[in-house]
Amino acid sequence: MIEKMQVNTKKRIEMVDITAEIKKLVGKVKVDQGLMHVYCPHTTAAITVNENYDASVQKDISETLSSLIPHHSNYAHTEGNADAHIKSAIVGSSRTLFIQGGEVCLGTWQGIYFCEFDGPRTREVWIKFIQT
Amino acid sequence: MIEKMQVNTKKRIEMVDITAEIKKLVGKVKVDQGLMHVYCPHTTAAITVNENYDASVQKDISETLSSLIPHHSNYAHTEGNADAHIKSAIVGSSRTLFIQGGEVCLGTWQGIYFCEFDGPRTREVWIKFIQT
Amino acid sequence: MIEKMQVNTKKRIEMVDITAEIKKLVGKVKVDQGLMHVYCPHTTAAITVNENYDASVQKDISETLSSLIPHHSNYAHTEGNADAHIKSAIVGSSRTLFIQGGEVCLGTWQGIYFCEFDGPRTREVWIKFIQT
Repeated sequence: MIEKMQVNTKKRIEMVDITAEIKKLVGKVKVDQGLMHVYCPHTTAAITVNENYDASVQKDISETLSSLIPHHSNYAHTEGNADAHIKSAIVGSSRTLFIQGGEVCLGTWQGIYFCEFDGPRTREVWIKFIQT
Repeated sequence: MIEKMQVNTKKRIEMVDITAEIKKLVGKVKVDQGLMHVYCPHTTAAITVNENYDASVQKDISETLSSLIPHHSNYAHTEGNADAHIKSAIVGSSRTLFIQGGEVCLGTWQGIYFCEFDGPRTREVWIKFIQT
Repeated sequence: MIEKMQVNTKKRIEMVDITAEIKKLVGKVKVDQGLMHVYCPHTTAAITVNENYDASVQKDISETLSSLIPHHSNYAHTEGNADAHIKSAIVGSSRTLFIQGGEVCLGTWQGIYFCEFDGPRTREVWIKFIQT
């Protein structure tokens, strides 16, 4: 089964911390040991795993990406969100995480983020668990 | 078992839409529910998931990557394709997709792309299914 | 079970070839056919798969990333390693590989790398096998 989670983003570019909701879901599905794949079904957003202690790291990630790949440039795509598609292709559509003892295994400073690159929008995150 | 698919690229840099072939393969392997991992065994190519409605998005992705990581620069690697290795490392060697009801689960605008960064070449894509 | 491997990095930025150790582990765990997920539990490091024939490719990857995302810039994060977090988010926290006949399936030129972006440090790599 595929679990679906709704994410309401509030800005054009935003790193939304979904760690707490993911942990709640892991508790609910009762997978003891295995894998979790967190998937973004959108082409102007992505999933990443990064520091969730100092929020300024998320600001640096999104601002550096935007300085490398600016909102407006000489793009062929005319919908005004070419930058968002490019960032999505680079950061990636999913992340894989391990589950042990019924809990998601994250490094000390790691959190799971939904990367909005063309919000605000109502988004979905799809999650699939593999029991091993 | 690992399924293998051949991709013949025609340009040095090209985003080849492999969605239709992947869907055909999914129909053939008869996995009802599970996962599909799409893997690129080459070090100057990659796999991505992105918009497959407006082809100009693919042009913007490859041209922006090439403006950030130019073909010719002060590279140590002397084979003339250092840029392709760097793009490959950034975009990534595989993508994970979900399967439900015997079909690959893609978001409304998503397609699966083989990213050629040093063609034209005869390439392979490896696919592995997990039934859950 | 999650296998854990220690990696001792020696420089601030370093692509450590972990292919031989991963192959040794694959031999030990006796998985005949399936998958291997190689995961980095750190927010200033990453995992990638790329050329392991000419070491100059690794130099080009890390130097190009550093020229796009410099060590010192106008970052909000004040620990002096914002660049490492950004690189980690872009390259990604894990890679998925296939296993067949008790061996990891790599393309002719592919190797597996631990990407250190804020060393030297004692790091961990987590590996999870799926028998199919």
